[in-house]
Amino acid sequence: MSISQSPDASAPVNLMQKATLIDQPWSPRMVAEMNDYQFKVVRIEGEFIWHSHPETDEAFLVLEGTLRIDLLDSCVHVQAGELYVVPRGIAHRTAAKGEAKVMMIEPRGVLNTGHEGGERTAENDLWI
Amino acid sequence: MSISQSPDASAPVNLMQKATLIDQPWSPRMVAEMNDYQFKVVRIEGEFIWHSHPETDEAFLVLEGTLRIDLLDSCVHVQAGELYVVPRGIAHRTAAKGEAKVMMIEPRGVLNTGHEGGERTAENDLWI
Repeated sequence: MSISQSPDASAPVNLMQKATLIDQPWSPRMVAEMNDYQFKVVRIEGEFIWHSHPETDEAFLVLEGTLRIDLLDSCVHVQAGELYVVPRGIAHRTAAKGEAKVMMIEPRGVLNTGHEGGERTAENDLWI
Repeated sequence: MSISQSPDASAPVNLMQKATLIDQPWSPRMVAEMNDYQFKVVRIEGEFIWHSHPETDEAFLVLEGTLRIDLLDSCVHVQAGELYVVPRGIAHRTAAKGEAKVMMIEPRGVLNTGHEGGERTAENDLWI
């Protein structure tokens, strides 16, 4: 289920419930907005592609499972209930053994593949 | 414990662990930054004062307990794992029966009392 408009903005958003509604991994779906920032939930499974966002930091909050963020010279494991911010311009690759459910926070218009493009670029601005 | 500088930014932030370190309610402490936005954890207990932030939306993610957000003509109960965004300019009052542990997200420089000022205005930019 994806919709192009925000659901009822006057109700709190249950993040896990939203993440569970997404029918496939690597398909971020918007759940809320704050000024020009977007809150997205995403299911992560396996490995993504290397990319960076030269213009913005990117925040990850893990809802369930363990998110691995590969950096060029290290990797970070982010557990449920933990927050991690990838600084702007830093090459990174998200991954999970099994599945991780994650909320991302970033400015409107940021693509999941940064400036890499390609077939794994997800459509933006889809709500769930 | 409060510090004036960010702890190790290369490690994930365990939000509940941070919230547990705060020694009193209504004392937001920074745990991370993303561009010009700040992530703060706060313990909420009892009722705050009515205020608004004319210049910005304000996001609340509940970590533990139930956060009540009073609005002029309604109130919202936000449970653990839920996100709620108070739109800019909307008068609101946060409250909790017992205690709620909450993460807030807002632009750097936003005061907890908005433009109301007064004795309940917390110092900004304290990390934990």
